[in-house]
Parts: sequence; structure tokens; C-alpha cells
Amino acid sequence: MVGGGQGAFIGRVHRLAAALDGEFELVCGAFSRMPDNNQHSGALCGLPPERIYADWQQLLESEHRRPADQRMQLLVIATPNHLHVPIAEAALQAGFHVFSEKPAALSLREAQHLARTWRASGRLYGLAHTYLGYPMVWQAREMVREGRLGALRKIHVEYPQGWLGERLEHQDNKQAAWRTDPALAGASGCMADIGTHAFGLAEFISGHRVEALCAALASHAEGRRLDDDGDVLLRTDRGASGTLIASQVCSGEENALKIRLYGDRGALEWQQMEPNSLLHRPYQAPMRILRAGIDQPELCPAAMQRLRLPGGHPEGYLEALGNLYRDFAAAIRRGDQGDVEGVPGMASGLRGMAFIEAVIASQASERKWTSLPDTDPTGA
Amino acid sequence: MVGGGQGAFIGRVHRLAAALDGEFELVCGAFSRMPDNNQHSGALCGLPPERIYADWQQLLESEHRRPADQRMQLLVIATPNHLHVPIAEAALQAGFHVFSEKPAALSLREAQHLARTWRASGRLYGLAHTYLGYPMVWQAREMVREGRLGALRKIHVEYPQGWLGERLEHQDNKQAAWRTDPALAGASGCMADIGTHAFGLAEFISGHRVEALCAALASHAEGRRLDDDGDVLLRTDRGASGTLIASQVCSGEENALKIRLYGDRGALEWQQMEPNSLLHRPYQAPMRILRAGIDQPELCPAAMQRLRLPGGHPEGYLEALGNLYRDFAAAIRRGDQGDVEGVPGMASGLRGMAFIEAVIASQASERKWTSLPDTDPTGA
Amino acid sequence: MVGGGQGAFIGRVHRLAAALDGEFELVCGAFSRMPDNNQHSGALCGLPPERIYADWQQLLESEHRRPADQRMQLLVIATPNHLHVPIAEAALQAGFHVFSEKPAALSLREAQHLARTWRASGRLYGLAHTYLGYPMVWQAREMVREGRLGALRKIHVEYPQGWLGERLEHQDNKQAAWRTDPALAGASGCMADIGTHAFGLAEFISGHRVEALCAALASHAEGRRLDDDGDVLLRTDRGASGTLIASQVCSGEENALKIRLYGDRGALEWQQMEPNSLLHRPYQAPMRILRAGIDQPELCPAAMQRLRLPGGHPEGYLEALGNLYRDFAAAIRRGDQGDVEGVPGMASGLRGMAFIEAVIASQASERKWTSLPDTDPTGA
Amino acid sequence: MVGGGQGAFIGRVHRLAAALDGEFELVCGAFSRMPDNNQHSGALCGLPPERIYADWQQLLESEHRRPADQRMQLLVIATPNHLHVPIAEAALQAGFHVFSEKPAALSLREAQHLARTWRASGRLYGLAHTYLGYPMVWQAREMVREGRLGALRKIHVEYPQGWLGERLEHQDNKQAAWRTDPALAGASGCMADIGTHAFGLAEFISGHRVEALCAALASHAEGRRLDDDGDVLLRTDRGASGTLIASQVCSGEENALKIRLYGDRGALEWQQMEPNSLLHRPYQAPMRILRAGIDQPELCPAAMQRLRLPGGHPEGYLEALGNLYRDFAAAIRRGDQGDVEGVPGMASGLRGMAFIEAVIASQASERKWTSLPDTDPTGA
Repeated sequence: MVGGGQGAFIGRVHRLAAALDGEFELVCGAFSRMPDNNQHSGALCGLPPERIYADWQQLLESEHRRPADQRMQLLVIATPNHLHVPIAEAALQAGFHVFSEKPAALSLREAQHLARTWRASGRLYGLAHTYLGYPMVWQAREMVREGRLGALRKIHVEYPQGWLGERLEHQDNKQAAWRTDPALAGASGCMADIGTHAFGLAEFISGHRVEALCAALASHAEGRRLDDDGDVLLRTDRGASGTLIASQVCSGEENALKIRLYGDRGALEWQQMEPNSLLHRPYQAPMRILRAGIDQPELCPAAMQRLRLPGGHPEGYLEALGNLYRDFAAAIRRGDQGDVEGVPGMASGLRGMAFIEAVIASQASERKWTSLPDTDPTGA
Repeated sequence: MVGGGQGAFIGRVHRLAAALDGEFELVCGAFSRMPDNNQHSGALCGLPPERIYADWQQLLESEHRRPADQRMQLLVIATPNHLHVPIAEAALQAGFHVFSEKPAALSLREAQHLARTWRASGRLYGLAHTYLGYPMVWQAREMVREGRLGALRKIHVEYPQGWLGERLEHQDNKQAAWRTDPALAGASGCMADIGTHAFGLAEFISGHRVEALCAALASHAEGRRLDDDGDVLLRTDRGASGTLIASQVCSGEENALKIRLYGDRGALEWQQMEPNSLLHRPYQAPMRILRAGIDQPELCPAAMQRLRLPGGHPEGYLEALGNLYRDFAAAIRRGDQGDVEGVPGMASGLRGMAFIEAVIASQASERKWTSLPDTDPTGA
Repeated sequence: MVGGGQGAFIGRVHRLAAALDGEFELVCGAFSRMPDNNQHSGALCGLPPERIYADWQQLLESEHRRPADQRMQLLVIATPNHLHVPIAEAALQAGFHVFSEKPAALSLREAQHLARTWRASGRLYGLAHTYLGYPMVWQAREMVREGRLGALRKIHVEYPQGWLGERLEHQDNKQAAWRTDPALAGASGCMADIGTHAFGLAEFISGHRVEALCAALASHAEGRRLDDDGDVLLRTDRGASGTLIASQVCSGEENALKIRLYGDRGALEWQQMEPNSLLHRPYQAPMRILRAGIDQPELCPAAMQRLRLPGGHPEGYLEALGNLYRDFAAAIRRGDQGDVEGVPGMASGLRGMAFIEAVIASQASERKWTSLPDTDPTGA
Repeated sequence: MVGGGQGAFIGRVHRLAAALDGEFELVCGAFSRMPDNNQHSGALCGLPPERIYADWQQLLESEHRRPADQRMQLLVIATPNHLHVPIAEAALQAGFHVFSEKPAALSLREAQHLARTWRASGRLYGLAHTYLGYPMVWQAREMVREGRLGALRKIHVEYPQGWLGERLEHQDNKQAAWRTDPALAGASGCMADIGTHAFGLAEFISGHRVEALCAALASHAEGRRLDDDGDVLLRTDRGASGTLIASQVCSGEENALKIRLYGDRGALEWQQMEPNSLLHRPYQAPMRILRAGIDQPELCPAAMQRLRLPGGHPEGYLEALGNLYRDFAAAIRRGDQGDVEGVPGMASGLRGMAFIEAVIASQASERKWTSLPDTDPTGA
């Protein structure tokens, strides 16, 4: 693991989720550029001192030198955004599989470079879009695929948070600091951090591709250098319209990712904060609530495989991320190359970057609609 | 009452709501152009045959000729949109007070003409924005006014319905028929019918005025002549941003008007389908649920006056509309002129028309932002 | 109307509900034993002074002397419990129909006497079990009847309130005062006031008759003379078991009447505070939410007839009571005798009294089970 | 681990939860009496063949013979009830710590014997009352302790499930089979299996001890040999009253453990299926919703320590059980003896058995109240 030292949020989350099914063992890390934090973090994880590395370069080099059966297999990248690509490329080239935090890169161009490196490497690459590990997200996707909603007309996705209502970046809050710094986070703050989750969820469940959008971004906290909020109109390649809302200044909201999809035969609604329920509104029939659980009726195999417990035993965020790790482990075990079945990968990463770039371009434009750039991962 | 014969929805609603507090008695009507329906509807309401009129012209003329203490005082207009202004103007000029269904007119220009007629008449004019009669809407407005949310940053209002998912206008459904006919409904379908409610609610609670918007309208049901759906970005005169969603093709949705307002000190959320709760998210403190009821803590006088029952005895839509009637009765009794205190009036009507026109203009435009036309009701 | 002067709760509720559909007009009243309150209350209702009577005896006498087409038709009894029977009997004997607040009487014996008077009178008698006017309660009953739940196994009904957590009866609160005074309320406080509602609801929906119970009553507010709380085990004549909870000291609860019924083929859940939803749990299939509304799928005729609005336009408590008034009006119009179709009547009253007596007896007993006394209203 | 082979539910749950924080590693097991299942289960867990034992006796013996630093430290007992005590006693006597599924024993007498064995052993003993690992349960308990509810008046706890609505024990369902067999489950089915959870939760949060109860048990599925349902009236040592409902035949219910506590200054409500919210109803103030999350306001240290994620990232059942494992690990690391801080232990086990015995006695009795036997774990 690179990144994820004390004071970071997501590093520990990865360690918990990876441990859940016993598929992965943390064997080495470069957790922080601060030597004390780095050592301390590694020790807390029970690592021997020789595998707590000063930086990611040293980590890759040293692990690479170890005998094949004693070296790290998968590198988890849990750093601020600007390091995602440099580390990922170096790791892939050194022969390691990579599981990276999102967004994949700082720019679409950088992501495309990464894509080429990845394809050349023959290694596996996955992106930590945790929400795509939730069983009921797979259930929703399957119901759309089966035509249970008919033709999709509307997609409304929203991701309100409230934690950046004030300028925490001036209050020694590390997470706020890098997320609002263009050099570390990239051209977008909120949209890159959580808008991409909302976007990815919408495309994943609907199977549509957003082809154009119209964005209004804002920095509500005075003096903030990146967007902390944005509202976006969407138009998909198959005729659906809708909205995407992402914000970090919605007072009192926690992590309220929610999606609604309306088709001419029915509708679905799912909320991340209550992830074990999926609301289904069949056309002209009473609403039904599908529930997560290995004993629950009507769930599709893809949802079932991502559940561990019977109905009424709530599974949550760590289990969702754990599902991505489980699928990653299976792909490694099978000796797969390229995409990791069940885990968002390079295609998602490129789409996410295309979304961010389109949002930024739209915000700068006086025209209503901005097309998303093409991101075919098999392209040049 | 004009309109509201058998087969109509809103006429009966007005009669029930007006009866609730015993402030008004239905004394005459022209309910339908079909003589049978008209006579039948009037008889069901217990009217004597001589006060069931063939049309609204005859109603105004005949009532006007009756002795002052035996004539109708207030005319309720419950017709399709294209008749709102002709009837309202004739009634005001004949000396009657008017309570009209929304939207006020077919166009802003027509509404401005009505406004001049109204000011000259010295009569009272109210608009049936029923949702502004809900007690917790007044509570929300008061909390915003008091600064409980701090500076408003975001306003998200939505009004999804699902009843027009198919072309009911081809299935002998009267309500669908006129609402999707430009000659009867005006230049907009969904936005005029329910978008105006959402818009009016947002301006009422927030105290902000929307100054520009960006709209994407759609007619999802094939061949429909007016919009049945739309997503709108909003920008207010005081720096808030947000979205307005209105749709009649959201399968399974009933009448799900909902508003959220986020300020730097807290947030509010209210849903029409569960109108007796108001969610309050103070900044960095647990969410609270304010509840309707004459015995409930913390409610402001404006909310209290609009309640009839103690907490836990649900009040609903008829009570909300009844509140508008009660306020109208009080204004008549006091001999007020012009605006009806507590009831949306000409200013709301003009704003609603400005919204519709801006939405239509935005839809036709390739530019991102369209300003709302000025609607100062005291202007020329 | 007798009772319901200023300071009372239920009198005004009756007036609003009776007005809703325009079926009844308040023509006379004896609202309070305090002359000032009485006159004032009557004047507020718009009554002429000569029909505001000093007491119920005078009301009955004077109304009886009026010409048949100018006299009151239906007497509404909205007094404390101890007057229900004396007034009802005098009114029935004077030839008036009676709509009485519950409980029907102070004791089962008194209720049986009333039943005999009623049968001899040929007049209509109804009991204001408002909750039995809710459309979704009828829907639930119909679904049980149709066998949608299979054989009922469990009935859990509860009615927690919190308003009597302190001794308001010592703080000049009229409603608290009579409800906690055995001379005015009878042998039970909470169980007579709201326990009977819960009991009646359970028997109404289930179609079962409670045959034995085990009660633990309490007076949690120190020094209170009647029960303010109680928990009861139930056993029905058809093999179901369950619980009934009623309390007035559950801090923070408003009026949270709720019932759940479980059968071997499914279950239902309904809550009075959100009365427009009915949860249906079919056996081994996802939960469904049936919604109130004249346009909603799957509702039975009995539910439909008790609705006024399409889905998503919430109807509440006044509408529920209005339904009882509407059914009462229809029965008067048809010239019915005896029971009022659609309105709880003497049979319910007797069952309610049997419940209260059994609860009191059980509380005093050391034996686990106490049978409910027989209440056949056609018996001697 | 003993028990928990393929087809069992709880064994896998223990393995996942123990892995979550990386505190424990599964080193050996006797998963099933069927050799194939046993071998297969152990192999799936990645155990070497020599540490997959044929039975628990062999497991204890062999592990005991291993060098101290290479042997199992903690034995997890995940068998049917009748083996809990024999295995626990043998393990404690062999010097191992024990973490046992509930109930602790088949009878209070057997549990008392175990308690003596445990005290003599100097080893740690914990009971898998998973629900007592939920952070918001600790929050609730702390708020009661701090007097936020004032004097507790009412406790209502319920645990409805629906999975045993039919006689699955005749359909080759292992879990149903042993739970309904008196020889394997003990004198009670439902009350031992889930009633004890509800009971333990009520005593844990309230700090009261139930001193008497009145139970009505039932076997709704025809021919079932143990109770599958029961309703219980409760009375505590400090004057609170209430109810406990546990059932396995409530169609459509999953695992709906819920508790409500009402005091004279406020109330709390918590539901296991939505474990990250705690409803707080302060007396005469709006309801508040406290939310789980390491960044959430107002949480007590005991709740905070049991959380891993910020608000809005749902934690669930595995995390709750993981908290018990984490506390167990800390106690082992500190070298504690006797009780495991933060984990329900022998005292809970004895109380649970006292509850079961009282329930069984009450069911057999015609008297209303049955006292709970004394269970002082320090007694003879």
C-alpha cells in the first residue's frame, strides 16, 4: 500500500476491507512521506521494519527484487490524486497488479497514457469505486438489463456531503487540504472526488453512456480554489435525460449518494446510506422493496455472490469494498490479464476523467451542452 | 365556481377545502360546457337550478344582477389554463373577488394585463398554490428568515409525478387531454402544471428570487405536443444555486413535491407527501424532526395558525387548501383590497409566468443561462 | 352537539369533519356548563342564541318541540365519558340519532342498558372510533378477509402517546383533568381513552374476537388516580396471540397508533400517523407498499369510497372522521334503523366496554388469563 | 473453532468478523461431525490438514500438546446449544479462552456449573451477543446512564423474524432442525434463540434487571416441538414495565430486533436493521437522530471506539461482532482474567438462562407473574 498513513481516511478502510474475506494480507507499505508517521503506521499494521519503505519508488524497487513467492502481488494506491498515475505506471511496469483510488488520473490525457502503459503491462488494474461493490447496485443493474424498467427516460443521481461547509483546509485538516489544492487534486475538487462516483454509478446501473452535459459549479466556501459543489444536466446516448448533483457544502448531509432511474415500465431507487434496500416501482403497481440477504427472494446471482449474510443482518461499506477485493483476488488466482471481472477498471477510469473534463469545460463555457470526449480504452 | 364538473379533479377539491372551516358556501356555478354534466354537477352540490349557469358569462351577469347580499362574493376559477385570464378579468371588473387555479395566465404578457385589470378593480385576487398553505412550509420559511440556516447556498426542489407516462390524452382522459394541448394549457405542459408549484415553493421558502436558469425539457411520451418533463439549473439573486426537477413521466411517483435548502448554518427538508414533518439539520449537530401539531414545540405563529389538530393527527392536502380559503375569508371580512394576506397572489402569478417563459426560452436556446424577465407587479 | 366548548379538543374536530363533505350543518349545541364558554362557543360556530342551550336536557327538550323539518337530526356527544350514556339514552328516547364519543359507557352494564334503549328506539347509533374511518384500515380488513394473510397468527397493536408524562391534571389542563378522574372517565384512564381504539382496530381488521387477556396497568405519573399506561397479552377466538400496548407516558410519542398482523401467508402493517401507506409483506416475496388514492392500483371498493383525492395528496384524521359522518348521513337519508353501515356502533361499544372491564379485572387478579365477558348486542 | 461447517450460518460469520481487524487468525477447527464436510470446511478456510480435527475432544487435546506459542489461544464455539457447556468447560480446563455462541447453556443449573468451572480456570469467557457490539447500543446505554431519559418507565423490545413460518425442520434445513429439537436446543426454541438477545439488549441498555415476567409462548407451526413465538410482560427491579416480543413466524420479517426506552425526560429507539441511527425524543422537544460515524457530534467514547468509518458509511452486523473480537483480543493481550471488558460474559449468560427458565415456568403456570431466579455469578 502506498499512502494511507495516520490521519488519512481511506487507507485504513482498504486494510479493513481487504482483510474481511482473508484474501489479502498486507505485506509492505509506504504510508506517508513523514518518516515518523510512516513507521508508526506500518508498525500498527504489524509490518516488519524492512518492509516499511520510505517512499513508493523504494517500495517498488525492493519488492521487485524479492523472490517471486515472497513479494507483494497487488499494489493499493491510496494517495492524493496527483500520484495515482506515476505510481500506477511504475507499478504496472514493475509487474505488479494495481488497485487505485479514484480518480484514475489528473487529466484524461494522463489517464490515456496510463491506459497504454496498462495494456502493455499485461497486469490487472482496478479502481476503487467502492459503491459499485454493493450487492443491490448489481441487482439494480441486472433489473435494468432485463428490461424491468422498460426504456429508461430519466436518471437522477446525487451525492450531497456537508463536511467541507467551512474552509477546513485552513484548519490543519489533511483530507480537506489536498482535496482543495489543484496541484494535488487536479482541475476539480468536488466533481473529481465524489461527482465521479455519482457519474460512474449512473453509467454502471443504467448501461447508458452520458454523451453531453451542462454543468454549474460553485465554490461556496469563500476563497476555496476548487469547486465544492455542482449541479449538472445530463443527456445519454440512448435518449435518457437527468441530473447529477454533487456537493460538499450541504450542511448536515453525510454521504448521501442516491440514484433514481425511471423507465416507461418502472423505476428503481437506491441510497448508499441504506444500502440493503432497493426500491422498485413497477408501472401502475405498488412499490416493492427488495432486500439484501442470501436468503432473500428475487435477487440475481450477481447480487447474491456479493452478500455474506441472511436478510436483516446489515452489510455496509466495508463489505462493498471487500467485494472488490474478493473479485480482485479471484482474478489474480485465475491468472487473468487486463480487466478484473467485477471490479471497475480502466474503462471506468477513462470515463470518469472524461466526465471531469467535460464538467470543467462546461463550467467555462457559455454554451448549454458540452459533449463528453471519446474514451474508448481500446483506442489509440 | 367556474369549471370543476364531473370528471375534473380540482373542482371537487376546492369545494371540500372551502367547506372545511365553514367559511364559504357554494352558491352558484358553471361547471361544464356540457349541459348534462353541468346540471348534474350543480345538483350534486345541492345548488338550485337557477344558479347553475350555462357558462361563465351568464354566471357573472346573473350574479351581478342579484341584490348585493344575495350574490356570490368570490369566484373560484377551476378551468383549463386558457380561460383563467378571460374569466378573472371579467369577474374582477364585475366586482367579484377571484381565486384562480394556477398558472395565472397563458403568457407573461397576458398576466401583466390581468395585473393591471386587477389593480384597477380594487378586488382581491388569489392563486391556488395549495402547497403554500401547508403549515410546515410556513415554518420552513420562518426558519430561513430567522437565519437558522445562515446564508443559503443551495436550493433543490423536485416534483416528480408518474401519471402521464403513457399518452392518456388519447385514452379519453380529460385531465390529460387539456394539459397536453397547447391551445388550452399554453406553451408548457409539465412546467406550467407542476414546475410552477416547485418554483413558487422555492421562492416562497427561501426568500430568494431566481434570476437565471438553464432548462432541458423533454416530451418522453412519443408524439406528445408539450413537455412532460424537465430539469432546470437555477441561480438566485442572492448567490444560491440549485436545481428544479419536474416530471410527469416518473413511473410510480405520485405527487412527490420535495424541497431541500442548504445554508452555511443548517438545512431544511420538506416533502409534500409527508407534510407534517420538517427535517432540520443544524450545522454539526444531529438532525431534528419538527412536527406539525397545535401542541408541538418550536413552531412559529404562522405555522400554528394553519393547524387544526394536535401532533400525531395528520393533516393533509385539503387542510392546506382550506388554509388559503380561510385567509381569503378573513380578507373579505376585513374589507381588504389588493393582495390577500397569507394567500399567493398576483406577484406569484407573474413570477410563475416569468418562470414558464424563461424555461421555454432556455429550452429553445443554445446558451447556458437565460434570465428571468422582470415582473414587478407595481410596474407599468 | 353536546360538549366541545372552548378548551376541548374533540368538539371542534367533529365540527370540521362533519363540515367536510357538506352533509351536516351544526344547528344547535350545549357546549359547556360554563355559561360564558357555552355562549361564546356557540357564537363562534355561528349559531343563533336561541339554539345555544344551557344544558343537554334543555337542548333535547327544545329541539324536540321544534317542527320536524326544523329540528336537529343527529346529536353528537362530545362530553367526558360519564355523560355518554345519560345523554345518549335521553336523545334516543326523544327520537334523535346519536353519534357518541367513545367509550360508549362507564361500564359494560351501563352499555348494555344503553343497548336496550337503543334497540327500542329504532334510532341510529354510532361511535366515533375515528381510526375505523381511514381508507387503508378498510383495505387491510379486506385483505385479511380475502385470505391474503392466510391464517392469522399474531396481532400486535400499540398506541403510545406522551402527553400525560407529567400530572397536567394539576396544571389547569381540562383534558387531562377529566381523563384522570374516575368519576368522569370511569374505572380506567389510558385503557378507556386509547386502549379501546387499539382494541377496536385489532378486532375490526382481523375479524377475530379477543377471548382472553392478561393486563399489567400502571400509573407512572406519581399520584395519578387512573392508569396512564398498560401492556396486555391477547388471545383470540381463532387461535391468534399478540399484544396490545397503550400508554400516555411515552415521552415524545404523539399519537402513534400502529397495528401489525401476521398470518401464515403474509403480513400487514399500518400506522395512523402515516395513514396513506399500508405495508404488505407477502410470504417469501418482497414487501409492497399499498398507497391511498382514488387512482391507486389494488385498492378495494371499501377503501376507494373513503378516499377523496388521487395518490400523493395526503388525507388525514379529519377525512377519516368525515368518512364516518358521510356514512351516517347516508344511513339517515336512506331511513335506516339500528346500525349505521360503515360506522362502528353498539356492538363495538359493548366490545370496548368488555375490553375495559377485562383489563381492570386482569390487573386486579393474580391469574394469568381473564376472559372477556360476552357482549352479544342482540342478547337479553 | 468448533462447529460452523458448510451449511451452518454462524460459523462463517465468526470467521469474517474475527478477520476484520486482523486481530485473530483461524488456526484450527472441528467444523462438522461429517468427515467430508469437516475436511472441506477446513480446507476452504485454508487450514492445513493436521489442524482440521475430527471432533472437539481431539482438537483440545492436540492443540494443548502444541508448543505454547504455536497453539490456539481462543476457542470459538459455534455449535448447537447442547454442546456449549461440555466444550466450554473442557476448553477452559485445558487452558483456552472461550468465546461461545449463546445461550450459554441448556439450563440455568448447567450454566452455574460452567460459571464455577470458568472462575476456577482463570481463563476469559465471552458470549456472542453480537448486538451488544453495535456502537449505537453503547451510545444508548450511555445516554440512559447519564440520565438523559430521566427515570425509565417503559421498555419495549421486540425481535420478530419470519423464517420459521413453515416447518423447515422437515425440509432438510439444518438450522431449523436443531433449533426445534429439544435435545439440541434445550427447553425453548424461539426464546432461547432470539428472545435472549432481546432480553440481554434490554438489560444492557437500561441498566435495570427484569425481576418478574409473564409469558405466553406458542408453537404456531403445526407439530413443532418447541416455541416459535412468544409475548412477554416485563417488570424491572427499578419500577419500569414493558414487553418483550420474540417470534420466528412473523411472515416477511427478517431480523427486526428493535428496542424503545421511555423515561420521564425522554426516550430512545434503536433498530438493528438500521443500526447507524439512534432516535432520541427529548421530553417536549423535537425528535433528534443521532448518527454513527467517527466524525459525528455527541457520540460518547464507548460508541466512538466501536466505529471505523465516518458518518454515512454504513457499518453493520459483521462490524458489531468484530467489535467483540477486538475487545477480546485486547483482553488477551493485556493478560486479563475473568470477564472480557466490552464483551458480554458469564453474567449475561446466567441472566439469559434465568430468563429462559422463567419464561418456560411462566408458560406452564396459571399465575400472572413469575420471578426470575437469582443469578449472582459470584454466588455459590
